[in-house]
Amino acid sequence: MVSGVEDETEHHHGYIGRKDDHLKRLRRIEGQARGLQRMVEEEKYCIDILTQVSAVTSALQSFSLQLLEEHMNHCVVDAARVGDAEAKEKVSEAMAAINRLVRK
Amino acid sequence: MVSGVEDETEHHHGYIGRKDDHLKRLRRIEGQARGLQRMVEEEKYCIDILTQVSAVTSALQSFSLQLLEEHMNHCVVDAARVGDAEAKEKVSEAMAAINRLVRK
Amino acid sequence: MVSGVEDETEHHHGYIGRKDDHLKRLRRIEGQARGLQRMVEEEKYCIDILTQVSAVTSALQSFSLQLLEEHMNHCVVDAARVGDAEAKEKVSEAMAAINRLVRK
Amino acid sequence: MVSGVEDETEHHHGYIGRKDDHLKRLRRIEGQARGLQRMVEEEKYCIDILTQVSAVTSALQSFSLQLLEEHMNHCVVDAARVGDAEAKEKVSEAMAAINRLVRK
Repeated sequence: MVSGVEDETEHHHGYIGRKDDHLKRLRRIEGQARGLQRMVEEEKYCIDILTQVSAVTSALQSFSLQLLEEHMNHCVVDAARVGDAEAKEKVSEAMAAINRLVRK
Repeated sequence: MVSGVEDETEHHHGYIGRKDDHLKRLRRIEGQARGLQRMVEEEKYCIDILTQVSAVTSALQSFSLQLLEEHMNHCVVDAARVGDAEAKEKVSEAMAAINRLVRK
Repeated sequence: MVSGVEDETEHHHGYIGRKDDHLKRLRRIEGQARGLQRMVEEEKYCIDILTQVSAVTSALQSFSLQLLEEHMNHCVVDAARVGDAEAKEKVSEAMAAINRLVRK
Repeated sequence: MVSGVEDETEHHHGYIGRKDDHLKRLRRIEGQARGLQRMVEEEKYCIDILTQVSAVTSALQSFSLQLLEEHMNHCVVDAARVGDAEAKEKVSEAMAAINRLVRK
């Protein structure tokens, strides 16, 4: 017997189809975070470090928006087809995530 | 013989005094980026991944704002004391970085 | 004869139920924009004006997020129930709006 | 005898030279806020309203960044020339405003 939001959606997360793409993207972001450490260690110019931080933030943001779109296309759309309560719950959960993205 | 903005400011980047703090922070961010890969590999729930991405973005933003404050307190203030042209140049460079931070 | 996305959704925009709330909010925002003009005319301190601009931006952002939630609960959920193509179209349209909100 | 930050800077706010430009910009923003009310009253499509809100937010942001640049070029630079304590105070005040802009 399966219950709870996590279990219910476990088998069809929208993003699984692009798992490799996502992992490649995240490895690049990890590399950029290491690059930032090198810049600080080598005492690079502050503005150049800030430019690099903006590039990482922007990469994370693109990743988020991609993940969110896949989530909406799968989890939210599926929930909408299950019923009103399920739809409302998934929309409100997605909105909380969007709030965090927007307000940062 | 010294010339150019980079050389001129090389010896007193504002952030050097806190280099260890910054490196510690950036290592934590690198760890968080690795944590994100683990979440994707283990096919965690999309919304939980998004929450974690927001935490990384927020950590990068705090780092940026700290770096910017140190830059203003040192490079911008020093430039202001050198002359009008120097001040204007540093302010406009800082504003470009602030623009990138704000507009993301 | 009905055709096109706009017509299809015309009768059940999610936000209509709260029209009065939205109008009240927007009138307050308009008042704040007028207040900003007064501050500039009276040559108030720049930082105080910036604080006030942040308040207006924040009010606009709350309005956007509220509108978006209503849109998701109505238009997106309804489209999900009509069919896959309709769902995909509405999600991609909502994502474009979210992108503009996030990237500003 | 006059003292205090506000009085000290009253006569040379950076933005006064462009007062008319700023007022024109803010009047346009006020008009956009009125346009939003019209859109809600006429029950326009949610996504079109969101697009318009993004335009207003973006206009407010440009105004903020312009004001901030003028503030840095005048108040911050002037303070840097007065002394270390004055510089630190103005930088920290500007950073608080930048924080509000970035975090929204």
